[in-house]
Amino acid sequence: MAPIITLTTDFGTRDPFVGTMKGVILQIARDVQLGDLTHDIAPHDVIEGGLALEAAVPFFPPETIHLAVVDPGVGSARRPLAISARRQLFVGPDNGLFSFLFGAGEWRAVLLEAAAYRLPAVSLTFHGRDVFAPAAAYLAVGTPLHRLGPPVTDPVVLPWPAAYREGETLLGEVIHVDRFGNLVTSVRTGDLGVLGPSPSLVVEVEGKEIGGIVACYADLPVGELGALVGSSDRLEISAREGSAERATGATRGSRVRVRKR
Amino acid sequence: MAPIITLTTDFGTRDPFVGTMKGVILQIARDVQLGDLTHDIAPHDVIEGGLALEAAVPFFPPETIHLAVVDPGVGSARRPLAISARRQLFVGPDNGLFSFLFGAGEWRAVLLEAAAYRLPAVSLTFHGRDVFAPAAAYLAVGTPLHRLGPPVTDPVVLPWPAAYREGETLLGEVIHVDRFGNLVTSVRTGDLGVLGPSPSLVVEVEGKEIGGIVACYADLPVGELGALVGSSDRLEISAREGSAERATGATRGSRVRVRKR
Amino acid sequence: MAPIITLTTDFGTRDPFVGTMKGVILQIARDVQLGDLTHDIAPHDVIEGGLALEAAVPFFPPETIHLAVVDPGVGSARRPLAISARRQLFVGPDNGLFSFLFGAGEWRAVLLEAAAYRLPAVSLTFHGRDVFAPAAAYLAVGTPLHRLGPPVTDPVVLPWPAAYREGETLLGEVIHVDRFGNLVTSVRTGDLGVLGPSPSLVVEVEGKEIGGIVACYADLPVGELGALVGSSDRLEISAREGSAERATGATRGSRVRVRKR
Repeated sequence: MAPIITLTTDFGTRDPFVGTMKGVILQIARDVQLGDLTHDIAPHDVIEGGLALEAAVPFFPPETIHLAVVDPGVGSARRPLAISARRQLFVGPDNGLFSFLFGAGEWRAVLLEAAAYRLPAVSLTFHGRDVFAPAAAYLAVGTPLHRLGPPVTDPVVLPWPAAYREGETLLGEVIHVDRFGNLVTSVRTGDLGVLGPSPSLVVEVEGKEIGGIVACYADLPVGELGALVGSSDRLEISAREGSAERATGATRGSRVRVRKR
Repeated sequence: MAPIITLTTDFGTRDPFVGTMKGVILQIARDVQLGDLTHDIAPHDVIEGGLALEAAVPFFPPETIHLAVVDPGVGSARRPLAISARRQLFVGPDNGLFSFLFGAGEWRAVLLEAAAYRLPAVSLTFHGRDVFAPAAAYLAVGTPLHRLGPPVTDPVVLPWPAAYREGETLLGEVIHVDRFGNLVTSVRTGDLGVLGPSPSLVVEVEGKEIGGIVACYADLPVGELGALVGSSDRLEISAREGSAERATGATRGSRVRVRKR
Repeated sequence: MAPIITLTTDFGTRDPFVGTMKGVILQIARDVQLGDLTHDIAPHDVIEGGLALEAAVPFFPPETIHLAVVDPGVGSARRPLAISARRQLFVGPDNGLFSFLFGAGEWRAVLLEAAAYRLPAVSLTFHGRDVFAPAAAYLAVGTPLHRLGPPVTDPVVLPWPAAYREGETLLGEVIHVDRFGNLVTSVRTGDLGVLGPSPSLVVEVEGKEIGGIVACYADLPVGELGALVGSSDRLEISAREGSAERATGATRGSRVRVRKR
């Protein structure tokens, strides 16, 4: 069974950066299953990168290696990490990208320091190629985590988008606008419970009031706005066969309120 | 020999949807060759998705599994299907996406109903992940088609873009604008025969008259419009090292006429 | 060990062209590791395609097969080639795309003429599918280069972007603008030597003067312009967490001057 390495970056697909990382991986781990998660994370947007990982990771088999590089601080003192968590492995910069791993659940992290598991020459601008791709590849061929470097116990943890109760209202934000213009929010199904059992809810974003939560896109009248629980268990605002982004003017970071009718 | 699964969606590559589907596949069928056809089908454009499949499928080996998700009706009563046709397998929604398979040639289709071949929890918004990816993966590991569910004998068939004779004229339409601005039409080489043997033809689109059919792009003067038979045996309108889309203002659906000079 | 085939084209990822080429490859070479370098080379931009290859190729293992199709002359008399160079193999059109291989170092090239190693029907518009993909696949399964056709000793070589000394100044150009808006130049680290040992340098582009060469992005004040040696050993102009492209108005081809302060 070939080990799996996924790749998540903000490198885009126009430049050969991702292809180059794959070349480095294949020099070290020839028999590997490579899978792109996305390379279109907004440049330097560490939180967006982490949210993409958080959504996809649960659907991969144990021992999958997730190589993720959203790395505005490349070349600076920010630490390069490998992490074992949720029965999977993660490789990338210590800048908050992996914050979602450091809450509940056990984890172990190491500093990617051992010269034997890097390219011989490490540039100051492309650690994806020179540090992270080799580390992921060496993990794929069975190198134990602790061989890559000494433990790190204080990784960077950024405040993660969440939902907060304020009186009778749940406050959240738009964390992602997907290709269809759906607004994915920081409100999870579980959060809705605080408003009481099966409440009849109103969702507000950018001054628009959206009534009721439907089960699926097909329950919405064509073009009309609605709210539903999306595929990653988050409240989404959608317009059937239309764009909720265009209809509301909301963008990533827009405030979202949920209250009883 | 690893089984091949291709993926065709309107999900784009910015969101981790496609990556997530690959994770689900790899949980079930670890030793598989994954290949993306395209994820940039216009959102919800079932015909465009089917045309992309129709063009690419003949070039894949027998027993390839084509997983295709352009699915505006996800969560509604539209049926999830697996289809055996042309010695290959197809998995996706029953909304016309596979219309091109149901004309000439034998086919067999089943309803993806068996719970054993879906994820344990099926969302109402992402059947690509919860229903279609698992079905494709189970087919890849050798599950017989009939195990996935009961037969379907009346799949949705949409009117497929074609060419029609009207007196001395052949009427068709632009079915696709490719990356180079070439206008791919619904007129096939075979259709041209009705206008008589080796006729000298004029092609009209958006009020522009294009004289003669050349053999290849290089036969056109640089920047000038011409018509030729493209790589999928369809009449194309092209501008050498330029964009026929920009030069004519045509878009998908624009009417095309072919007549004798 | 599965042979590696990389793909580099200007086909984009919206059309199923690349997927179709992969189907053709898999018909011939089933057990192969496919890796995309990029498909977003500017349409018909042979030099951009060659520069992408030149940057990525050194990071791939020996015997990797690089299939590259940027092919404005498809269907004309331009020759289809396979090339052995730098212990790797290359397949694509003879239009200058591979110019970087024909300088220093040994190489051998053949004309892709043998009918046995093409698809049975060769279109005039899609040699990527009908000629180049089969050639790459036959090389992957061990077909010796000379079986594909007769030697070519005079491949097309285009003038490659370089840097020239003019008195006390080094003249170069912007050869690529990456996703982050970094301006990659034709000036290599080695070129800087002609200006004397460790000189204190000024870089000029589009009338903007940029002082000093820093080690990495993190050494620049946020948003400010700077110059550094990038990951492919070329002088780059960057703006930390900003776009040097926007800040300078430079595009591919913009003149760059480097001089002592």
